Amino acid sequence: MRIDIITVVPELLNGPFSHSIMKRAQDKGLLSVNIINLREYTTYPRAQVDDYPFGGGAGMVMMIDPLVNAIESLQKSNTYDDIIFLTPDGETYNQKMANALSLKNNLLLICGHYKGIDQRFRDHFVTKEISIGDYVLSGGELAAAVLTDSIGRLIPGVLNDESSALSDSFQDNLLAPPVYTRPEIYRDWKVPEVLLSGNHKLIDEWRTNQSLERTKIRRPDLLD
Amino acid sequence: MRIDIITVVPELLNGPFSHSIMKRAQDKGLLSVNIINLREYTTYPRAQVDDYPFGGGAGMVMMIDPLVNAIESLQKSNTYDDIIFLTPDGETYNQKMANALSLKNNLLLICGHYKGIDQRFRDHFVTKEISIGDYVLSGGELAAAVLTDSIGRLIPGVLNDESSALSDSFQDNLLAPPVYTRPEIYRDWKVPEVLLSGNHKLIDEWRTNQSLERTKIRRPDLLD
Repeated sequence: MRIDIITVVPELLNGPFSHSIMKRAQDKGLLSVNIINLREYTTYPRAQVDDYPFGGGAGMVMMIDPLVNAIESLQKSNTYDDIIFLTPDGETYNQKMANALSLKNNLLLICGHYKGIDQRFRDHFVTKEISIGDYVLSGGELAAAVLTDSIGRLIPGVLNDESSALSDSFQDNLLAPPVYTRPEIYRDWKVPEVLLSGNHKLIDEWRTNQSLERTKIRRPDLLD
Repeated sequence: MRIDIITVVPELLNGPFSHSIMKRAQDKGLLSVNIINLREYTTYPRAQVDDYPFGGGAGMVMMIDPLVNAIESLQKSNTYDDIIFLTPDGETYNQKMANALSLKNNLLLICGHYKGIDQRFRDHFVTKEISIGDYVLSGGELAAAVLTDSIGRLIPGVLNDESSALSDSFQDNLLAPPVYTRPEIYRDWKVPEVLLSGNHKLIDEWRTNQSLERTKIRRPDLLD
């Protein structure tokens, strides 16, 4: 799977893909993440990519033409399944969308920055608008990193133990049950007896009940 | 404001705070972000911080004692307003929570990694559990970066134009209106006439209507 990310601040994306699970995914050849610097595609002086909003108001707006130049150049050698704009007014991202996107071959992510991006670009080039949550970030870069990470870890072979992703929160509309590890007693806090019983039927029942209880208390909306 | 982040993969957080708005916030002395490597606080051989889950199952679990060592060491010189664990089964993060957290002085964020974190740590040390959305990431690092960015940009003086944050999506339960910038005509796509009119009353009305329309179509739940 290939994920291309267009940004005006490529440096923001230095860390998230160069270590841990996302690095392993790339080292294994299962995922290729390419960071594209939008400033290389502008024809304006001083690598300008944004300008004042028509009608006035606070903040700068990203111009349409550098973005179109970048996309049309990339499309000469790539066919994208989706061109995704990360924006707080997009469709709210969830695990089901992550599962669906993890089956694609080629995604292009567009990071907004400043106040936003010229609406004509959104109208004519973007195929999907996604929000990672109901809050505003200083740019789309962290949202693109979140998307890439959540998708990348679902590609078969990326996680060492593939059954691990299947028992995550949300995969069955339930929150995950509590987990415990050594030491068995810390200060005077003990691990629940059942987890030490060696009885896997009882342990499974306990975990299912804990998942259900936790979901009822914390996220009853998931059970509807 | 000071935000401390405990992680087992500090390298993942290299990029997000070293550039653009978050860097400016730190350069101005308005925000201090400290990345703490959990492995410096473990007493186990080979800097071990995780172990197999009691009761079996996929994935590793972060142990309680390195985390408690780290927190108790940090608390010698810091009083935290909140100790926040980033987890998919936490309270769903939103702009209202970002606004509230931006008024605190001192936050400690705990990044999970692997399958999760020993439940006893969550029960006895964490004061708030936050989820940035209904999806699973390979660790809490990106979630901590999202939280820090969304909070940091709200600190007065961080954004060049403070009124910019006030007109963002969610601040008034409405999505932001479309924005446009130069060129006025691109291919045959024109900027809406009203934005070129110079009539600020009309422009404000248009923007309010567009915000409302967009919210009705995309996120009717915000209007309830």
